[in-house]
Amino acid sequence: MEVEQVLHMNGGVGKTSYANNSLLQRAVISTVKPIVDASIEELCCTLFPECLKIADLGCSSGPNTLLVVSDIIDNIRNTFQKLNRPPPSLQAFLNDLPRNDFNTVFRSLPGFYKKLDEEPEKKLGPCFIAGMPGSFYGRLFPENSLHFVHSSYALMWISEVPKGLVTKEGEGLNKGNIYIAKTSPPAVFKQYLEQFKRDFTVFLRSRAEELVPGGSMVLTTMGSIKSDDPLCIWEFVGMKVNDMVLEGLIEEEKLDRFNMPYYAPTTKEIEEVIEAEGSFILQKLEVFKNDWDSYVKQANSGLDKKTRAAIFATDIRAVGEPILASQFGEAPMDDLFRRFEADVLDHMERENCQFINLVISLTKKR
Amino acid sequence: MEVEQVLHMNGGVGKTSYANNSLLQRAVISTVKPIVDASIEELCCTLFPECLKIADLGCSSGPNTLLVVSDIIDNIRNTFQKLNRPPPSLQAFLNDLPRNDFNTVFRSLPGFYKKLDEEPEKKLGPCFIAGMPGSFYGRLFPENSLHFVHSSYALMWISEVPKGLVTKEGEGLNKGNIYIAKTSPPAVFKQYLEQFKRDFTVFLRSRAEELVPGGSMVLTTMGSIKSDDPLCIWEFVGMKVNDMVLEGLIEEEKLDRFNMPYYAPTTKEIEEVIEAEGSFILQKLEVFKNDWDSYVKQANSGLDKKTRAAIFATDIRAVGEPILASQFGEAPMDDLFRRFEADVLDHMERENCQFINLVISLTKKR
Repeated sequence: MEVEQVLHMNGGVGKTSYANNSLLQRAVISTVKPIVDASIEELCCTLFPECLKIADLGCSSGPNTLLVVSDIIDNIRNTFQKLNRPPPSLQAFLNDLPRNDFNTVFRSLPGFYKKLDEEPEKKLGPCFIAGMPGSFYGRLFPENSLHFVHSSYALMWISEVPKGLVTKEGEGLNKGNIYIAKTSPPAVFKQYLEQFKRDFTVFLRSRAEELVPGGSMVLTTMGSIKSDDPLCIWEFVGMKVNDMVLEGLIEEEKLDRFNMPYYAPTTKEIEEVIEAEGSFILQKLEVFKNDWDSYVKQANSGLDKKTRAAIFATDIRAVGEPILASQFGEAPMDDLFRRFEADVLDHMERENCQFINLVISLTKKR
Repeated sequence: MEVEQVLHMNGGVGKTSYANNSLLQRAVISTVKPIVDASIEELCCTLFPECLKIADLGCSSGPNTLLVVSDIIDNIRNTFQKLNRPPPSLQAFLNDLPRNDFNTVFRSLPGFYKKLDEEPEKKLGPCFIAGMPGSFYGRLFPENSLHFVHSSYALMWISEVPKGLVTKEGEGLNKGNIYIAKTSPPAVFKQYLEQFKRDFTVFLRSRAEELVPGGSMVLTTMGSIKSDDPLCIWEFVGMKVNDMVLEGLIEEEKLDRFNMPYYAPTTKEIEEVIEAEGSFILQKLEVFKNDWDSYVKQANSGLDKKTRAAIFATDIRAVGEPILASQFGEAPMDDLFRRFEADVLDHMERENCQFINLVISLTKKR
């Protein structure tokens, strides 16, 4: 499996599209906003760029994509008003893998610019939004060409499934699961951790080359409290796939050989990689915990459990469907997410499952 | 009609896609290559950029999109080899209107990068290809941020249909035609020329702000020898639409109110606008003439007239269908291009129709 070829959120604007099912990601962006704000303000007050150059890595396709840019525009305007200086122009690069649905994002830009023009209090210097397709596990931009990098809910997607999860004989090490789970042998956890360390190191090194000295990053990713027991949503999806294997609806071998290209690190693992790579000062590392469905409750108060489970199931489907379908085919997807929907909230309550969100604020050493 | 919303080449990679029907544009790019080469070489020898920043305006979607970037990469490599200096990195922005099919372009990038990596003699510094959706009749990039701008077969698309072609009473001035034609009243030509002058001035002013001093541009556009009698392919398409109106297949009113957002200027008109705008030195202005189907003959020698007409019809359809269908609907398109195919080469021979290509090489004043 070439992760670059199969990993993307559901495109378009239909019922199961990521664009219409990304409430969770939206809630996270708003939780992290104060940290982004502080970072941008600090940046503006130290670097005073004529044109502020920013990148959003793993931008995906949907209303959240431009939400981040929009928040940052508000922020720059406020900061420069306080400083009593004319605001800079802005060049924003939206990055995701080449199979992301950039067309949908680009088609919403004329409306976005129009809205900016219509709100004179939002007036900034000219604002230029470009798309930059490619993997952030490697260089994306020229040297010293960015002031700020943002990434939300993207870094937990690693560059490849650890090679050591399948033996030379082609046997799967992580049978019956699609991610680190309670029934996974310890070697599975180790392989994932090593892959994460390699990937995150490359990520930091690439950004260190691209950012100007003093430039900064705010990264939000899913994490764990204990790495070898992450109580992850993909563990639960794996259980449902396993049920379908037991009923003969999915081939056992397909499950045994499949693992998600995903890793939810702990704060300690994050800190160790940053320290070892050496280009950045860690300004802040915060943990936010939420019940799996709390963002649904927040967005629509008073929904019963069944309705919340349905929304949650569509959201996870919008994220996971392309990669799951690449292994198991399109056909079992409806059934799989019906099963997911039926049990997910009971499972969450029983196991105290929570999303662990890590927010990492970094400055490039001068 | 909002040109920005309806003007784009046929997307995807299917039978009537622009990607599979852009031989003409390919032939033009190869004719113009020596002029691009000279311009890039001059640029490299005077500016020695660490990262060469280029933009291709009106890149469209298909094999030609990356052909231009690929040619420029070859060129930079050769030039820096001659100079015995390490080559710069390259940041290339592919620009087109937001409805262009950027997804298809972006999905071809991994293969493009892989090919670059596999040809060590093609080794350059890192190469970063971004997409920049938006109209080039306005700013697209930060000030002083580009070294070179290329545009091929895009500038003849003006920003809007001249407003004066429809009277206040809603009556069409250019009845029976969709572009300046032998049967158009002189006012039609005047309205088009004025629109072209406004647009091309805005284009030059925007690029002057974006290019570094000494930066350069090579622009290829369709032109005319005599503006009020351009013997244009759209005049011929208009005749076929008119035939369908006479047979009751298209409403007369729809034809009377429709005009192409297109203008093919003369060299004199181009020179006058460049002179009046004042930011650029005109290095070169060349005219290439070709029979309408000569690019088809060149690409596939020995094809009979019928086969050439079929290829030519599909090519023009790939370009014109989205905008024609926005006025006349999808339904008459098959019939329209069948009629086009049947008569086009006879018409060409009778009227001595040729494509007039203008190539304009410019340097920003220092």
